[in-house]
Amino acid sequence: PGSPRRLSPQAGARGGQGPKHGQQYLKMPSPPAPGLQGSSSRDPGQPCGGESTRSISVINNYLDASEPVSSEACLSRMHFHDNQRKVDYVLAYHYRKRGAHLAQGSLGHSLAVISNGETGKEPHAGGPGDIELGPLDALEEERKEQREEFEHNLMEAGLELEKDSENKSQGSIFVRIHAPWQVLAREAEFLKIKVPTKKMYEIKAGGSIAKKFSAVLQKLSSPLQPRVPEHSNKMKNLSYPFSREKMYLYNIQEKDTFFDNATRSRIVHEILKRTACSRANNTMGINSLIANNIYEAAYPLHDGEYDSPEDDMNDRKLLYQEWARYGVFYKFQPIDLIRKYFGEKIGLYFAWLGLYTSFLIPSSVIGVIVFLYGCATIEEDIPSREMCDQQNAFTMCPLCDKSCDYWNLSSACGTARASHLFDNPATVFFSIFMALWATMFLENWKRLQMRLGYFWDLTGIEEEEEHSRPEYETKVREKMLKESNKSAVQKLDTNTTECDEVRDSIALTFSIVFGVIVYRITTAAALSLNKATRSNVRVTVTATAVIINLVVILILDEIYGAVAKWLTKIEVPKTEQTFEERLILKAFLLKFVNAYSPIFYVAFFKGRFVGRPGSYVYVFDGYRMEECAPGGCLMELCIQLSIIMLGKQLIQNNIFEIGVPYGLAQKCETEAGETDSAHSKHPEQWDLDYSLEPYTGLTPEYMEMIIQFGFVTLFVASFPLAPVFALLNNVIEVRLDAKKFVTELRRPDAVRTKDIGIWFDILSGIGKFSVISNAFVIAITSDFIPRLVYQYSYSHNGTLHGFVNHTLSFFNVSQLKEGTQPENSQFDQEVQFCRFKDYREPPWAPNPYEFSKQYWFVLSARLAFVIIFQNLVMFLSVLVDWMIPDIPTDISDQIKKEKSLLVDFFLKEEHEKLKLMDEPALRSPGGGDRSRSRAASSAPSGQSQPGSVMSSGSQHTNV
Amino acid sequence: PGSPRRLSPQAGARGGQGPKHGQQYLKMPSPPAPGLQGSSSRDPGQPCGGESTRSISVINNYLDASEPVSSEACLSRMHFHDNQRKVDYVLAYHYRKRGAHLAQGSLGHSLAVISNGETGKEPHAGGPGDIELGPLDALEEERKEQREEFEHNLMEAGLELEKDSENKSQGSIFVRIHAPWQVLAREAEFLKIKVPTKKMYEIKAGGSIAKKFSAVLQKLSSPLQPRVPEHSNKMKNLSYPFSREKMYLYNIQEKDTFFDNATRSRIVHEILKRTACSRANNTMGINSLIANNIYEAAYPLHDGEYDSPEDDMNDRKLLYQEWARYGVFYKFQPIDLIRKYFGEKIGLYFAWLGLYTSFLIPSSVIGVIVFLYGCATIEEDIPSREMCDQQNAFTMCPLCDKSCDYWNLSSACGTARASHLFDNPATVFFSIFMALWATMFLENWKRLQMRLGYFWDLTGIEEEEEHSRPEYETKVREKMLKESNKSAVQKLDTNTTECDEVRDSIALTFSIVFGVIVYRITTAAALSLNKATRSNVRVTVTATAVIINLVVILILDEIYGAVAKWLTKIEVPKTEQTFEERLILKAFLLKFVNAYSPIFYVAFFKGRFVGRPGSYVYVFDGYRMEECAPGGCLMELCIQLSIIMLGKQLIQNNIFEIGVPYGLAQKCETEAGETDSAHSKHPEQWDLDYSLEPYTGLTPEYMEMIIQFGFVTLFVASFPLAPVFALLNNVIEVRLDAKKFVTELRRPDAVRTKDIGIWFDILSGIGKFSVISNAFVIAITSDFIPRLVYQYSYSHNGTLHGFVNHTLSFFNVSQLKEGTQPENSQFDQEVQFCRFKDYREPPWAPNPYEFSKQYWFVLSARLAFVIIFQNLVMFLSVLVDWMIPDIPTDISDQIKKEKSLLVDFFLKEEHEKLKLMDEPALRSPGGGDRSRSRAASSAPSGQSQPGSVMSSGSQHTNV
Repeated sequence: PGSPRRLSPQAGARGGQGPKHGQQYLKMPSPPAPGLQGSSSRDPGQPCGGESTRSISVINNYLDASEPVSSEACLSRMHFHDNQRKVDYVLAYHYRKRGAHLAQGSLGHSLAVISNGETGKEPHAGGPGDIELGPLDALEEERKEQREEFEHNLMEAGLELEKDSENKSQGSIFVRIHAPWQVLAREAEFLKIKVPTKKMYEIKAGGSIAKKFSAVLQKLSSPLQPRVPEHSNKMKNLSYPFSREKMYLYNIQEKDTFFDNATRSRIVHEILKRTACSRANNTMGINSLIANNIYEAAYPLHDGEYDSPEDDMNDRKLLYQEWARYGVFYKFQPIDLIRKYFGEKIGLYFAWLGLYTSFLIPSSVIGVIVFLYGCATIEEDIPSREMCDQQNAFTMCPLCDKSCDYWNLSSACGTARASHLFDNPATVFFSIFMALWATMFLENWKRLQMRLGYFWDLTGIEEEEEHSRPEYETKVREKMLKESNKSAVQKLDTNTTECDEVRDSIALTFSIVFGVIVYRITTAAALSLNKATRSNVRVTVTATAVIINLVVILILDEIYGAVAKWLTKIEVPKTEQTFEERLILKAFLLKFVNAYSPIFYVAFFKGRFVGRPGSYVYVFDGYRMEECAPGGCLMELCIQLSIIMLGKQLIQNNIFEIGVPYGLAQKCETEAGETDSAHSKHPEQWDLDYSLEPYTGLTPEYMEMIIQFGFVTLFVASFPLAPVFALLNNVIEVRLDAKKFVTELRRPDAVRTKDIGIWFDILSGIGKFSVISNAFVIAITSDFIPRLVYQYSYSHNGTLHGFVNHTLSFFNVSQLKEGTQPENSQFDQEVQFCRFKDYREPPWAPNPYEFSKQYWFVLSARLAFVIIFQNLVMFLSVLVDWMIPDIPTDISDQIKKEKSLLVDFFLKEEHEKLKLMDEPALRSPGGGDRSRSRAASSAPSGQSQPGSVMSSGSQHTNV
Repeated sequence: PGSPRRLSPQAGARGGQGPKHGQQYLKMPSPPAPGLQGSSSRDPGQPCGGESTRSISVINNYLDASEPVSSEACLSRMHFHDNQRKVDYVLAYHYRKRGAHLAQGSLGHSLAVISNGETGKEPHAGGPGDIELGPLDALEEERKEQREEFEHNLMEAGLELEKDSENKSQGSIFVRIHAPWQVLAREAEFLKIKVPTKKMYEIKAGGSIAKKFSAVLQKLSSPLQPRVPEHSNKMKNLSYPFSREKMYLYNIQEKDTFFDNATRSRIVHEILKRTACSRANNTMGINSLIANNIYEAAYPLHDGEYDSPEDDMNDRKLLYQEWARYGVFYKFQPIDLIRKYFGEKIGLYFAWLGLYTSFLIPSSVIGVIVFLYGCATIEEDIPSREMCDQQNAFTMCPLCDKSCDYWNLSSACGTARASHLFDNPATVFFSIFMALWATMFLENWKRLQMRLGYFWDLTGIEEEEEHSRPEYETKVREKMLKESNKSAVQKLDTNTTECDEVRDSIALTFSIVFGVIVYRITTAAALSLNKATRSNVRVTVTATAVIINLVVILILDEIYGAVAKWLTKIEVPKTEQTFEERLILKAFLLKFVNAYSPIFYVAFFKGRFVGRPGSYVYVFDGYRMEECAPGGCLMELCIQLSIIMLGKQLIQNNIFEIGVPYGLAQKCETEAGETDSAHSKHPEQWDLDYSLEPYTGLTPEYMEMIIQFGFVTLFVASFPLAPVFALLNNVIEVRLDAKKFVTELRRPDAVRTKDIGIWFDILSGIGKFSVISNAFVIAITSDFIPRLVYQYSYSHNGTLHGFVNHTLSFFNVSQLKEGTQPENSQFDQEVQFCRFKDYREPPWAPNPYEFSKQYWFVLSARLAFVIIFQNLVMFLSVLVDWMIPDIPTDISDQIKKEKSLLVDFFLKEEHEKLKLMDEPALRSPGGGDRSRSRAASSAPSGQSQPGSVMSSGSQHTNV
């Protein structure tokens, strides 16, 4: 009692008012905090940081002594004004002094003049004219007090703050936050952040042959490697969660740089999330405060500028030069550096994207080969030759009532030939290959994830604590107020109602999805009804229709994104993570339906329900259902796929991702140039970062890739070139995303995560669905099965000669319904029987136009193929899944080895410690940990050999 | 330097020879260890245990002051002779003194007389006569030295040992091991064992309605609850991994009982596994020593006797009374107590078995209802009525050549009627239900597993370190020796060859499996060829054939178990865990094939490939393939299933599990009575436990249940009563297994595990396979689809009238091949056309006996049904999987809450500690932790309120 309090020195200095409330950690009732403004928080008597003399060789700080600008101004860009303490996090808000709008003449700009107007960027800055000053001022005052309380609580938690004084009547203020060593150490211990220990060990590099092979490979791929300082692949530090009681384990040379910038800002962010503010309805964390407009933004700082002069290097610039430019598109990604700079979550995204892109290479190659096989065998394809044969002409029934004439099958020759390019036995093989490819890809991703998890020390981390979303808290509070009259005011009840709402919301999503499907299909059917008259112009008509479709898809895509967000907001999920997951699932379902429903329509529904000549199916007052071209629906499917896929990628990449941000940037720059002219010269890093776009999550990036993954796998049987287009797109996509993250966004909070979450489930769901969809495309859409059946059961000589004739049924034109016969027929022959594509009994059979035995035979074959294909491919996938262990053998060996090394290491340190226990003189109660670790390394190396070797610095052990 | 060494007091006392080798932890080169024998290890000057005065109220120790036997003899049953230190583990070995066989007369029994004989239980105890004494003596001496070194190493690791002196010429010696507090604390820290902290918190019990409901439920189920002391379901201690630096967190009242018996023995077992023995080829761990016959057994002690007098209660007895008797079959299992006594792995098995059994209840009920529905509608079934109709008689073609006559379909009336019991629309519904049931069961198991994991503090534990199996080490050593001549002596190479061998072995397993399938099917076909002559005796014949089949299955089951073990041994997996997993997989594949291949044969192959009258398929020199009974193969399938399933369960339960162990026990008892007569009065606990069977793992128990799960799910469409039989069996099975574990086996090592491992994958694999298998049973085996097709497409009035006629094709008897006509036909009519069950064109059609259009139509319908059923059920399963969260909401809330409570708790303790840091006078370097925790609780509660409340004892906080 009465001893000086270590945790928050300021509190002690300010008189140590004891905490009053039991719930909150050391909360001050209502601190006026007069010493906060300006740079008064720089307390010279602080015990921290005193011993840390900044050295120039520090890795992460971008500044160099050789920079031309004056040393003081330069250093302060990322540091407090004392040039000592690094800025780890920045909170930004817009202030307006009491009655500032009265003295508007004193300011350069005329914001307050506009009555009732609010500018977009400063939502609550504008005043409502001169009449209603009170409430606005009160609101502003309220916010100021909340900020003051929050900042005070942050300082109580041990953080150090600096901000410029509010000397103008209104403007932006940046609260810079620095985390001193004791805070970093405490939080690192709570968060169980794994840090390298002194102990290093060799990573097993494989057998001698494997070693040589990998060496050769490394040499060959060296021009493809990004030139970044790499971790050694041979040695790894044994990692252990940071613990202040085990400081002797770690190799702490410089307390300022022991935790890298991303970790430091993560720790600060953790405190910001945890700190409460009693004035603001007892909300928890910075996110609630931002949601309530008390702060405007909160972000960690970038490491410097990416386009600074040559000799001034920082991680951001390195990333820009070696990763985020189109010029380096052929290089591997510097994944470790990306992870170091942006955190594990974003690192995993780029690792995933990289793996996906590299997996597209083999499938592209095989896709091209399959396509070329189609091209090469086009002349040998008997059915299309028969169709093109003018001698052996088949007179076809008219495609529409009255206005259409009989036509000759040979006029559809071109479509038939083109169809062969995609409808040949090689595509069956290719779709099996792609189903296994998808499984292989997912398995390899699991392995890569484990590998990265091992090298990034993510093994054994637990899920991070999640706080409630501000919206959820508001809702709960409202519920509580509403129900306070009733007897049962229990949180659990809100939980159950919340559950009901989730169910409701899910039901709503599904009904919307279903409605969309029905709407799309009927519209597509209605639009294309009776439009195509002559088969040789059908392709053009199809193409233009699809382009219209594409535009609709792109527009609906944005709308559905908003709908998904709206639905999820209605649901009010509790935490950010559940919010994200539910939003993703809804958006995925809607976008999936949007992108694929026209394709599904063409693949499985178009032309299936047209009826037959003489008894066509009519919808909408006498419109006949649309038929497929005589070459089969596969050709149309192919056109549809290629246009939608290519168009979506080109337009989304160019316009949305390149164009729009560029335009925005231009606009922002001019705006910024106008308003913030004061900061234009030597702007501080927080000013620069503030002008960037905030980071809003990886969802759009993943979503785009997932939809693409669907194109690559779901219909690969009808469009083997999809992987090539995807590959070309992704080579650009990687750099585009990289550029966005490095140059256009504020630095995201480094988030620690072990996996890519729900995206993996979606991917594996698509992979499974693709098996079924490909089975149906081959069995139902393509002519593969009918050909096979004809060849083995009906053909006289085992070839496909006569196949076309076999697939066409006869129709007696005299049986055409009154009023549907072609008017003004210009067909050059007398027509008694016309032909149509179906397996039906001929007019002279006892049961004319019924489905023939062939029909049922072919249908059985189709269905049997689906069953065999689906179960075979599923079995093979399970086999592949089982054969490839999720954890690579070398990594699981290493993890085991690491564990046993850790036990050995501890047992040895144990001895050391026991020896030291008996030398209490060495232990001074003040700087406990530090002195203990020093003592451990300076202990005389007598008595026990292994222990003493262990304790001196980092040491290599062969594994 | 020179200070007393804390870790192993004996080593210090014996002169403190320093360790020489770098690899091993404090190994003594070759200690003669003269002070080990007898009870010399009881060092009275030890700092441990001195303050622990044994109190009677201790929970886990079975002894009570009121026991009639003399207190000293009684206490020593589970303690060292000082009655202070508890025996945590026992090592047993058989010794024989040098030259003991020369003085054989001095011993009561005549083992050494048998020349070259070795008794089964003491493999190396018997001597080979009087001639070759030297090598045996040397071997014995060698073993003795190895034991001495190992025991010495154990003492170096801090354990305390006691053993009786080897005063006879040969006999069994028990090395009793006690783990003192500092060892327990150190190892608990290494193993990250979670222990309760002082902090308690309330578990959210649900809303007011849920609360009331659960209260009512609890009241209703109270007679079903076992009467064991339960953990409170309302409060839970916050758990945190044990750390000696955070002793102030835990509520350590009595160091002797802070860790319960299972944890203590687990810790000792961990040390035993880790301790090396340089003399025995540097092998690691007790398992290697047992494998090399240096020790005979190693086991922890049971808590006492299960049939001791009434007033003497221990956990084992409690388990026996409330769980391991048939009398309590209706009660829930005391899962927490099981886990406490046997460890998490066995606890999870019984929890799983319990959940499975309770899940069988609803499916049994519905199965019975489905069966009753079949019984109720049997009179309304038109097809069977038509078949039984004598008027409307169908003359059937002969079932075999020459000796068989034409027959009337009405003679198969009985089979047809019985067939309806299982072949009705309700079974289709039931098989969909069971597929979803399987998914629900697995989902609920995941949830229960998570819930148990939460209450048992398993969240966040990592996989346990696994040591290599002795066999693997031997193999590697041999490899190393063999390859030492070659250039590349690298472990990696052995790894790759090992990998190759694994592949080989897997290929071998698969080829064996495949061979077994082919062999079984052909044998079954050959056996039943032409045997069944008249359809009304077919059922009897089938039944007897199946019983023969059952016997074959039971015999092969044992053989395959051995084959799987042999195959896995050839493979030499590295660790016990991989050994177990691979063995399980192989054994499962073989046993699965063994149990199910005859069933698959009947379901999908029998009667499918018989050909048609006039062109039958002949195999083996003129034997016709077997046909199904006219009622359909489903009836035969049903008989097969019921006999195999019931027989397997009855025979395996009664003979193998009840009979054999009983016989063995009888035998052992007499044997033990003869030899160990010295110990018969007041035997020590280690003597009693030694006479029990060793625990050999849970594999047989799981395997039996998994095969049963297959019967319940795979063919449920044809046998809806399977769940009932499974339920009846399991009610017995639970108590049978319980009894075995409590009364017949040595206490197993408590193994910490989060899940049931590979069994879950196998279960979910069976679940998935069952969807396909049921789809095929309904589509192919049953008449469900043909009836549907007939009813909706061929029937004139929408009923099944005429169905039987529709399914029978005509055959012109004049076209029967020469020599296959029935000889001596006694059929009462002139036969021109006979009928057979198939869809073929009639003799008068242009293409007689070809498959008719109906055939292809029905086939299409069957296949379409398979596709729809499979994909629908799979989709529903995925939906169920997705709808039921893997982690129960309340548990995930609790886990999150626990985490944030932990952070709060720490932050408060942090304050306490910082205050104490400035009172160095309180901290004596000797009993560091203890004194610190005392200091923490005795700190004056001034200044800050929350902190001081926290530190005093356990404290309740509402969550």
